[in-house]
Amino acid sequence: MTARIFIGETAVNAVPADDRGLAYGDGVFETMRMHAGELPLWSRHRARLFEGARRLGLALPPIDVIEAHIGEAIAGIDAGMLKLLVTRGSGGRGYAPPADQVPTWMLALHPLPATSTSLNGLRLHWCQTRLAVQPALAGIKHCNRLEQVLARAECEQAGCDEGLMQSTAGDVVCATTANLLVLLVDRWITPPVEACGVAGVCRSWLIEQGLVEVGVLAPHAVETADALALCNAVRGILPVSSLGVVEYRQHPAVAALQAQLAVAFPMFQLHKEVA
Amino acid sequence: MTARIFIGETAVNAVPADDRGLAYGDGVFETMRMHAGELPLWSRHRARLFEGARRLGLALPPIDVIEAHIGEAIAGIDAGMLKLLVTRGSGGRGYAPPADQVPTWMLALHPLPATSTSLNGLRLHWCQTRLAVQPALAGIKHCNRLEQVLARAECEQAGCDEGLMQSTAGDVVCATTANLLVLLVDRWITPPVEACGVAGVCRSWLIEQGLVEVGVLAPHAVETADALALCNAVRGILPVSSLGVVEYRQHPAVAALQAQLAVAFPMFQLHKEVA
Repeated sequence: MTARIFIGETAVNAVPADDRGLAYGDGVFETMRMHAGELPLWSRHRARLFEGARRLGLALPPIDVIEAHIGEAIAGIDAGMLKLLVTRGSGGRGYAPPADQVPTWMLALHPLPATSTSLNGLRLHWCQTRLAVQPALAGIKHCNRLEQVLARAECEQAGCDEGLMQSTAGDVVCATTANLLVLLVDRWITPPVEACGVAGVCRSWLIEQGLVEVGVLAPHAVETADALALCNAVRGILPVSSLGVVEYRQHPAVAALQAQLAVAFPMFQLHKEVA
Repeated sequence: MTARIFIGETAVNAVPADDRGLAYGDGVFETMRMHAGELPLWSRHRARLFEGARRLGLALPPIDVIEAHIGEAIAGIDAGMLKLLVTRGSGGRGYAPPADQVPTWMLALHPLPATSTSLNGLRLHWCQTRLAVQPALAGIKHCNRLEQVLARAECEQAGCDEGLMQSTAGDVVCATTANLLVLLVDRWITPPVEACGVAGVCRSWLIEQGLVEVGVLAPHAVETADALALCNAVRGILPVSSLGVVEYRQHPAVAALQAQLAVAFPMFQLHKEVA
């Protein structure tokens, strides 16, 4: 991993040992797809970053400084992922946020994930790990991710590509790294994220375009749906081939949704013709 | 802060930028009181550390290595706090834990917190921030602590010493950094920690001694109790003088409980006679 680390506006060599991100997961992050030297979804990631910082009372570095360093980091890079992490920095008395916060933040470049399995459809595991109902933290991309770590470990154990998570109230919420899209007859439904889950930037675009509606989904509704897909900001829309023992046929509505996303964001064009 | 940092059994200068503790709060910690070059509650902290690692599937460094470095760190120190933090280390594909985990861990020394306010009784704030019901993470001392950070920020804003937190189900659970003890007539009750909250080591000692019982507590029961106290591994038992607008008189049962703790652990002896 190539990481550029900063405290406030100053570049540093390492994250301090007393950083609150390390101690408490006291921070927010964004994982973004680079394309032709740009971040096509940046304005949406930035909006969620601001919202996360507002909800947590977390001081961000000046946004123009972040944007300048992002520009340097991704210049000339054709494709990849960029992760931005911002923590509340050092200090404070225990859990209490320090009066004068100086954020620690970093930019790290990663290659795009392999897409081989995704074209044929993802195999999903029903995760035993539930998402706690916590409106104070729902929707934002904060760094308290032990639920996702435990759920993802289940997926690896089960030999699946991804996993669907329910809330502790029993509603279906999302996958560990993606939002869920469920085709009910001719409408795409995605669960709300006001109680738990993350408000994905790809999901928000689909909702704004009127392509996907928000609705509460019970496990049975998902298992008997006409098709499932996952979406996130790095991989776009991915078809699902199975969920536990339930199998789903390829459905033209998934390809149609992928095509609509690719018109707006060409980085999500599929290249099935490549052998 | 003086920190000794290790990756596996090797001392290092800094925590790597891709550490999972920083990315996801993927770790556990213990905050322990030092007394005369020892950690009198170590066996209880160690048990909770093991339990947290087991529940999270987190590989710990060899315990004899941890104990040897703790011995070096605290040798000759009369009083203070020692924080042990263990993360799952670097790597893995996103949330998925790496197949071969090499933990990052650190030991950091801190001075004891000031005790001036605590002798007269703590002023408690009723926190708006609730604790999510999440049995998968309840009881252990993991590093996903945004709920406590938000609650503690409320306490600072309210000008209070500490805050009481309810679960999202409405039960009273604990303070942000301590367990709650509630005197109902002649019995001390502490809330269960199977749904949320931390199983404090001081709390567990009090329960094992038969001095405190576990019971579900609604806010009204706490507000109308004969006395309240908080307990944790660093400060022992602290009386509470107010909770929101409710005031509590000094009660001899608090002093009696403090005295019983101090017999077993002399580091918790009170020194009220010091001017």
